[in-house]
Amino acid sequence: MPTTAQPLPWERPLGANPVGDGLVEFRVWAPHADEVRVRVGDSEHALTDAGGGIHEGRVAAQAGDDYEYRFGEHELPDPCSRHQPGGLRGPSRIVDTGAFQWSDAAFAPRPLAEQVIYELHIGTFTAEGTFDAAIEHLPQLARLGITAIEVMPVAEFPGDHGWGYDGVYLSAAQSTYGGPLAFQRLVDAAHAHGLGVILDVVYNHVGASGNTALAAYGPYFTDRYSTFWGSAINYDDEHCDPVREWVLQSAEGWVRDFHVDGLRLDAIHAIFDTGANPIMAQLADRVHGARDGALVIAESGLNDPKVIRPRAQGGFGHDAQWADDFHHALRVLLTGDTDGYYAEFGTIADLAKAYQTPFVHDGQYSTFRKRRFGAPAGDRPPEQFVVFDQNHDQVGNRALGDRMPDETRALAAFSTLLSPFVPMLFMGEEYGEPAPFQFFSDHIDEKIATATREGRRREFAAFATFAGEEVPDPQDRATFERSKLTRERDPAIAELYAALLRARTQLPRDEDIIIHPNEDQGWLAVDRGPFRLAMNFSAAPREIPLDGHAEVVVATATPQLRPEHVLLAPKTGALLR
Amino acid sequence: MPTTAQPLPWERPLGANPVGDGLVEFRVWAPHADEVRVRVGDSEHALTDAGGGIHEGRVAAQAGDDYEYRFGEHELPDPCSRHQPGGLRGPSRIVDTGAFQWSDAAFAPRPLAEQVIYELHIGTFTAEGTFDAAIEHLPQLARLGITAIEVMPVAEFPGDHGWGYDGVYLSAAQSTYGGPLAFQRLVDAAHAHGLGVILDVVYNHVGASGNTALAAYGPYFTDRYSTFWGSAINYDDEHCDPVREWVLQSAEGWVRDFHVDGLRLDAIHAIFDTGANPIMAQLADRVHGARDGALVIAESGLNDPKVIRPRAQGGFGHDAQWADDFHHALRVLLTGDTDGYYAEFGTIADLAKAYQTPFVHDGQYSTFRKRRFGAPAGDRPPEQFVVFDQNHDQVGNRALGDRMPDETRALAAFSTLLSPFVPMLFMGEEYGEPAPFQFFSDHIDEKIATATREGRRREFAAFATFAGEEVPDPQDRATFERSKLTRERDPAIAELYAALLRARTQLPRDEDIIIHPNEDQGWLAVDRGPFRLAMNFSAAPREIPLDGHAEVVVATATPQLRPEHVLLAPKTGALLR
Repeated sequence: MPTTAQPLPWERPLGANPVGDGLVEFRVWAPHADEVRVRVGDSEHALTDAGGGIHEGRVAAQAGDDYEYRFGEHELPDPCSRHQPGGLRGPSRIVDTGAFQWSDAAFAPRPLAEQVIYELHIGTFTAEGTFDAAIEHLPQLARLGITAIEVMPVAEFPGDHGWGYDGVYLSAAQSTYGGPLAFQRLVDAAHAHGLGVILDVVYNHVGASGNTALAAYGPYFTDRYSTFWGSAINYDDEHCDPVREWVLQSAEGWVRDFHVDGLRLDAIHAIFDTGANPIMAQLADRVHGARDGALVIAESGLNDPKVIRPRAQGGFGHDAQWADDFHHALRVLLTGDTDGYYAEFGTIADLAKAYQTPFVHDGQYSTFRKRRFGAPAGDRPPEQFVVFDQNHDQVGNRALGDRMPDETRALAAFSTLLSPFVPMLFMGEEYGEPAPFQFFSDHIDEKIATATREGRRREFAAFATFAGEEVPDPQDRATFERSKLTRERDPAIAELYAALLRARTQLPRDEDIIIHPNEDQGWLAVDRGPFRLAMNFSAAPREIPLDGHAEVVVATATPQLRPEHVLLAPKTGALLR
Repeated sequence: MPTTAQPLPWERPLGANPVGDGLVEFRVWAPHADEVRVRVGDSEHALTDAGGGIHEGRVAAQAGDDYEYRFGEHELPDPCSRHQPGGLRGPSRIVDTGAFQWSDAAFAPRPLAEQVIYELHIGTFTAEGTFDAAIEHLPQLARLGITAIEVMPVAEFPGDHGWGYDGVYLSAAQSTYGGPLAFQRLVDAAHAHGLGVILDVVYNHVGASGNTALAAYGPYFTDRYSTFWGSAINYDDEHCDPVREWVLQSAEGWVRDFHVDGLRLDAIHAIFDTGANPIMAQLADRVHGARDGALVIAESGLNDPKVIRPRAQGGFGHDAQWADDFHHALRVLLTGDTDGYYAEFGTIADLAKAYQTPFVHDGQYSTFRKRRFGAPAGDRPPEQFVVFDQNHDQVGNRALGDRMPDETRALAAFSTLLSPFVPMLFMGEEYGEPAPFQFFSDHIDEKIATATREGRRREFAAFATFAGEEVPDPQDRATFERSKLTRERDPAIAELYAALLRARTQLPRDEDIIIHPNEDQGWLAVDRGPFRLAMNFSAAPREIPLDGHAEVVVATATPQLRPEHVLLAPKTGALLR
């Protein structure tokens, strides 16, 4: 019986790593292959069996050389590829991530409680759609009060453009965005402007275009579980450990080699691992170990506080998690949407509860999910929850990708940015961007393209609010182009966001939140220390008690101060002191 | 949004419950049925829709009446049946569990740390194979020092005899064992003799003979997961809550209505629930809530201390769990078996580790499982682990069901009964029972019978140590008969067990365990306070240092005390003081 600490062959670095002296070390897991050869340029080299299915060798090569692995009938990119210059089906390229000249030694990320996150999609953030093109917009974000950008997934995905959630090569920054070196430049520039970078990573599945290539190497997938997006990644079945390392080393690499300040983990409820060392806990440990203060932020559809509890309390030890319920409670109050999961929200009480702890479902029966859902998270501090009134999903997964309606967006921003949680903006909302953010893809496999197109149509056929309208074709390049930011500014909205973010810095973080809901009248007041957030969600003007507050700090529309009340127009909010 | 506390329709008692005034309340979950009727005797009554798929009604009826539910084309027993007098496919019978005259008010179970468990199978424990017939053997067990019997599953299973792990009606005590009232008599008699009763319950699957009947009612199963034994029970998919209640109320019922002192949960690693309120934690809460001190003991193939950690540490809050690794480490040292998972054991170091914390695999790579396995459990006290050198699986799942070989059973018992953990005996081992315990079944569906028979043959075809021998036919009644205890006593073994159990009571429980392994010589010494367990696993006589210990308290064969050492014959042990 070996000891726990004994490192296993796959626990040393995988991939193609320059080791000096003109040599590159190749290490690849291919447990069923008798022999693996690496082709670098025109030459081919047999690797040696290092045990545990690992094949390895040191070969004369250099950064910039293209390579592929050959075994059996296969000639395939490296699952741990750092660059796919020709896309998913092309060769991998050797990258020397250590060669970058970083200039960010002085940068230190803000504490989580001070963070204001800005979610952006590289392909549509600029006309060029590249890492480099994004750089010029960073100063403006920093001035606004953003503390970190959150970059939607960049792991190499099929085609020239897409949301990025069907990536395959977890460690290769998308070639059409500019590849890994350009991503390093973006992170370095962000740090220079005082902005952190959080990277959205997808570890719950890979894009269907990549299953075959990965499965040729070994059991990357398991049929023990099924996920909404296809084969479940093998985190707990036989031979799971090298697969886990593939993910863990990727996570560490972004933090260590690309100086990323945190990872946002996509849909961890679709990550199945019943083992005694859950991958989600191990990943948090490894990311925290790779760089002090690196954040792990989960998207979890489980409303389970275990995700953000410390390891000693049996938790995964993630730093924060997205709180979709806050969004839903707010959205339905603002817009009256009732489709799908929105049907369960719509009361002032829901939003009131969300301001205390943003799991509105914390054990109740959910008619949408047809089961009791969630668990109480009252023991977790507010900075462990990320809230938003718009994000890529809540905008882009609407049939037309339309943003928050004009008449509600001011109050939406007010409610979110002044909440006690970590707010996240979706690119463009801060100045009233008119372009939609639609669902677009560029699938290279005709079957997948057709399935995506038809799936999208089917998905929205049932939605009452969408009857009769045409769903944009995700594979049509125009859908992608239409989703690019126009940068047409609505000055009033831009000014409001700036004012709200300034006001946010004045709000106390350690005082109890006191909630005053009024269901009949449709208003909500939330006290944070000496401040009161007064919010009128009704369609009529409402008087909200002042209770001693005398001054308007910021408001979405000028309110009337009366002796005992503040009079708020419909769908407006005022911060009082 | 309803509150968490709001009870849902299925959270009131399900089943057929006498409510006085000659009425019985029927409550059944059948979410897809427009109408459900209950047939009691010759009369039929329409039930009313109570919401949430529950159909209910109060009907003139009494304990002893047979009933079935009728809906659509179905006429089926009650999933919550308390008695199936005609077996799986017959009607259910109304039972008034509250009518039993208990005489056990004075009984209080021992603390876990003082328990000595005795696993028995009702069908083979006596010639009659009934609950009532078991009663006469209880006084002898109590005299021996047993504190609780653990009864292999009694939930109604197919046919007249079987191990019980393919039960279907979770709350119905097997009809061929005597049914529910006889089970109450057994528990009451056990308590009268100072013995607790632990009941083995199977909540990870139901016998294949029952899937169709249950699935006719509603989504009892989910295809999100697959288990070794068939469809996974729906613990976290849509409509899981009434299924969970079916299980939870069954567990509570055994404890509350049958005065059972604890449940042994079969194979919880095959219970899948990714929700925020894991069924395994909820079940422990409900069982503990049903009766103070009721035990929950898990069989878990995960070596995960989470199972036995308290809720506040993110655990399931189970009281104890089986420690198979202790068995394997011991067995392989004793017998040199190498098939299957045994291949990973066989060193003195393995057993030495098992004496500290019986998870030998606590994070190491397991060649048998082809993955790292387990997590350290050093924070859990020894009484949270149940150990054994024989049990129904380790005997019965050998091809021939043969018990521990003669030449090793004394040292096996010595090592187990004097360990710091909670020991469990398998019926008959305490007097050297010669009968095997083979795998037997009485499947009523020809397909399942054939599959069982062939599966068994296939399973053992690969085992080297079994080459050429005939696997007993599980469906042959002779296999069952052959497995009944003969009660032929080996007086030396019987005396040894009695002596070991007496010695066990003298051993200190709060002192550190100090281990002295000698791999080369094949011996192990374990110090427990002033006592030393000296164990020689080698095939040669060995000298084990006395280190100041001077007296032999008990030994499997008279050892020689020399000035500095005790000389132990091969495969013997001595407890020194």
